Amino acid sequence: MQIKDIGGEFGLIKKIKDKIKLFSDDVVVGIGDDAAVLNYDKNNYILFTTDMIVENDHFSQKYWTPEQIGKLAIEQNASDIAAMGGIPRFAIISLALPSDIDVEFVDKLYGGINEKAIKHKINIVGGNITHSEKIIVNVSLLGFVEKKFLALRSSAKAGDSIFCSGDVGSSTAGLELLRHNLKGNSVKSHLEPRCRLELARKLVKVGINSMIDVSDGVASEVKHICEESNVGAVIYSGKLPISKDTIIDSKKLKKDAVDFALYGGEDFELVFTADKSKLNKMKKLDVTMIGEIVDKKYGIKLIRDNKKQNIESGFDHFRRLRV
Amino acid sequence: MQIKDIGGEFGLIKKIKDKIKLFSDDVVVGIGDDAAVLNYDKNNYILFTTDMIVENDHFSQKYWTPEQIGKLAIEQNASDIAAMGGIPRFAIISLALPSDIDVEFVDKLYGGINEKAIKHKINIVGGNITHSEKIIVNVSLLGFVEKKFLALRSSAKAGDSIFCSGDVGSSTAGLELLRHNLKGNSVKSHLEPRCRLELARKLVKVGINSMIDVSDGVASEVKHICEESNVGAVIYSGKLPISKDTIIDSKKLKKDAVDFALYGGEDFELVFTADKSKLNKMKKLDVTMIGEIVDKKYGIKLIRDNKKQNIESGFDHFRRLRV
Repeated sequence: MQIKDIGGEFGLIKKIKDKIKLFSDDVVVGIGDDAAVLNYDKNNYILFTTDMIVENDHFSQKYWTPEQIGKLAIEQNASDIAAMGGIPRFAIISLALPSDIDVEFVDKLYGGINEKAIKHKINIVGGNITHSEKIIVNVSLLGFVEKKFLALRSSAKAGDSIFCSGDVGSSTAGLELLRHNLKGNSVKSHLEPRCRLELARKLVKVGINSMIDVSDGVASEVKHICEESNVGAVIYSGKLPISKDTIIDSKKLKKDAVDFALYGGEDFELVFTADKSKLNKMKKLDVTMIGEIVDKKYGIKLIRDNKKQNIESGFDHFRRLRV
Repeated sequence: MQIKDIGGEFGLIKKIKDKIKLFSDDVVVGIGDDAAVLNYDKNNYILFTTDMIVENDHFSQKYWTPEQIGKLAIEQNASDIAAMGGIPRFAIISLALPSDIDVEFVDKLYGGINEKAIKHKINIVGGNITHSEKIIVNVSLLGFVEKKFLALRSSAKAGDSIFCSGDVGSSTAGLELLRHNLKGNSVKSHLEPRCRLELARKLVKVGINSMIDVSDGVASEVKHICEESNVGAVIYSGKLPISKDTIIDSKKLKKDAVDFALYGGEDFELVFTADKSKLNKMKKLDVTMIGEIVDKKYGIKLIRDNKKQNIESGFDHFRRLRV
């Protein structure tokens, strides 16, 4: 039996989650959110997350500069801390490198890591370096969040509005352009995504009910929120925030940008839900209302071209490769 | 310029350390010890460490069972926490797997991870799974240590005795047997190393001055302690704890077991220094006195066959591959 036979990446995570054993009352949230949540002190939690990027799976030297590889490794992890409403503080980095790699390349890669670490005031406190045929960068990040500001996937409520930050689909449009040897402004979104740490902090201060970052497409993220919160959802595809550049680049590819937004990934924007009473405050921020949370019995539906559809699955790391 | 031209793994770590910027007074020890040390509360520090193993670099499916791969990933990290005198508490795991891998294999690998997590009471609180051609397991571990028990590489004092726990060299003897298609009891030491968490806690309670775990050979570990503590050392090769099995297996390989102990690695034993007044208490534990710390001006010397030698470098992940 292969991983695809048990539902891919997410089926495997469920299988693993069912088997592990916890020994501590300090685990507030374990496997199943963007970061683990651990007790810290009276007012704060520790957040703990990790993410790995592997050459030719998540990036390729053909398209990425070494600086961009380093930046991606940090942004991807910081985005998980953002999705919890928190502030990243300490990082440790595992680097695996081919033996014939140029020191200048490693310098530049670490230059990218440092640039983003400085931007987000993340302290790089350790790590290790080892050998492998392909370049691998694994970042683990410790952050903190005030208990009152913690944002989980599991606390969406029927009646909540669903929001999406910035614009989505551009990273996937950029990836597809690269694959087809085409040019367009979306390419930069794919090669240099940036996480929404500052916006996330504003959102938790306004007051939201649930949040997740967009790593696997909006549809997949809404699905995660619904599964963890035991609710249903309606997404209006016409409301998805998609930039003009993404639409232009999608046309070059003869694709619908809405599919990139729903089923692409790596945008590192935020999908979150909040009570309708927050709508006015949200209007002042870089977010768009894209749907609403409903009772579980209605399932997760997409209104597209005036028709009600079931949503498909999002990006699965075992369904297709990125580069 | 390649990594070997700047002194390999350790040259590269130094280069990286020189460039990073710290933003927090809570970083007690950053890059350069077995784990990072962060302020936690009045009496305790947080320990934070990570380690990666990559298929065909650190293990091979030819020799390792999936359970052994999982166990290695945990033991290697727990050993870093042991070397700081601490207790591991929370782990997050990055797994990269080929798409055609059998689910049963992943189950067994996670079985090995779980077995060791349960043994050490480590809570697995998160992680991620992605695709790669080779199996990669990256574990990040959070632990805690009482401030009074923190053991660093940097606090050895001239006059200290140098000790080594258990026996050393057997993991490298086992690896060499595998490489030469030979059999022997050392093979198990290579495939199933275990860290010395319990012993480490006893040692910090007796009172030691500095500690490190044996990942790159005793010579390399003593060198790290000396560099970080600004001292010199004398190691008596005749006193190195080497098991009968290791000696028997080394003879099969026509090698000197002392070289495996000094320049091998992956034993996950502890090398530490303590004031001579602790000698009697140490005699009750599974440790052996192997040398002494001297003034820096005397350098780091090895007494072998009644001759004084300079020590060579230890295992460098860019100097040779393991499997």
